[in-house]
Amino acid sequence: MSDELAGRDVKALVFDVFGTVVDWRTSLIDDLSHWAKGKGIEADWTALVDAWRGAYVPSMDAVRKNPAKGFIKLDILHRQSLDMLIERFGIKGLSEADRDHINRGWHRLKPWPDSVAGLTRLKTKFIISPLSNGNVVLLTNMAKNAGLPWDLVLSSEVFEHFKPDPETYLGAARLLSMEPGEVMMVAAHNNDLKAAQSHGLKTAFVPRVTEYGPHQKVDFEATGNWTMVVRDLVDLAARLDC
Amino acid sequence: MSDELAGRDVKALVFDVFGTVVDWRTSLIDDLSHWAKGKGIEADWTALVDAWRGAYVPSMDAVRKNPAKGFIKLDILHRQSLDMLIERFGIKGLSEADRDHINRGWHRLKPWPDSVAGLTRLKTKFIISPLSNGNVVLLTNMAKNAGLPWDLVLSSEVFEHFKPDPETYLGAARLLSMEPGEVMMVAAHNNDLKAAQSHGLKTAFVPRVTEYGPHQKVDFEATGNWTMVVRDLVDLAARLDC
Repeated sequence: MSDELAGRDVKALVFDVFGTVVDWRTSLIDDLSHWAKGKGIEADWTALVDAWRGAYVPSMDAVRKNPAKGFIKLDILHRQSLDMLIERFGIKGLSEADRDHINRGWHRLKPWPDSVAGLTRLKTKFIISPLSNGNVVLLTNMAKNAGLPWDLVLSSEVFEHFKPDPETYLGAARLLSMEPGEVMMVAAHNNDLKAAQSHGLKTAFVPRVTEYGPHQKVDFEATGNWTMVVRDLVDLAARLDC
Repeated sequence: MSDELAGRDVKALVFDVFGTVVDWRTSLIDDLSHWAKGKGIEADWTALVDAWRGAYVPSMDAVRKNPAKGFIKLDILHRQSLDMLIERFGIKGLSEADRDHINRGWHRLKPWPDSVAGLTRLKTKFIISPLSNGNVVLLTNMAKNAGLPWDLVLSSEVFEHFKPDPETYLGAARLLSMEPGEVMMVAAHNNDLKAAQSHGLKTAFVPRVTEYGPHQKVDFEATGNWTMVVRDLVDLAARLDC
């Protein structure tokens, strides 16, 4: 499909955030290493960050499998995983304020080099929003810190479902008062796009091949028949004539 | 209470929009009169706009009183009222596209002269969001048209309740992950602030004494013990040290 055809009906772009818009791994490792050095706290922050992200999908699955407990926002899941990992890694001397500061590292993630420029151009022609498993205030604080120029903030927390549950993709279209085909999901993760496509959304894949550092195993390239495959968010803007 | 004390615990400001941030009456009368002149459509647009706004509260009350029918977003309530008024005013020759254009007049409302400057300053220190009975895409399009620099968009549509239902004020605090007292409701309407205050939010009154033109009957001044009473949004920014 030509880019002109691909983008013709699209009125809004919704973005996966962790990995697609921000480089969570390098950001967190740098942020926590620098902070800990200033405090004199010793730990293998690289290993902790990788293990923390490793706990992400299982922690959301646990919420999904136990609906009677209600929805739990990501800041709280992150904190539960962090407390467990601090114990496992034997990190000593962390106060409650320290733990809160570490947990809010996810609010301080840095964008990939093309993200702000790409989003700024895309915003001139489309409604742009995150559609992320991050909770509302996490995504809002991240946008303020990183200069992400969202028009609004759509989050799993609003729908009380995590991606890839249908309620998130369809809920985004509903709140935007659009048909699913008028919304394009932009992500570095093929499984996110597969779910979005199955509910009628347009799809754009952007490779972020260093997201997981040496541990990256998937998503080096598009594995589905996505509406668009782009180099980065600036390339997406150019190809959508922004 | 001094302004310093008043603002000390506040982390987010949420704003009533119709009347507080945008001048719906003058905007709509000007927008529709100009458009209709170009199309050669005759009508008393001033009377229609006043009658349209007059249908606003009753239309939300009808939704509130019939929960079995589910929540209905404001774009749809506006359209139902508009169709009824076009009939009542005997306006002829309007196509479906014309009616849709008129209805989207609410997406094109203009800000009061101080709104963009005030919000831009407030955004440097606080999270700023609408907390409006407008639906999500209405508020999002309005922000893009008018340059309102919201950090996120909180709407009755997200909570499936209209203000002054408690779910809206408490829902805003919940999605912001804040205590109600860390959120300040800013409005030109004393009844909105009264409801917000009853649920623990801080309150700021900004008079908009020409909102209803010659039909203004209330809200010439603060009638409650609000946290702050300001002249306009630039004054609010100055008094909160932004």
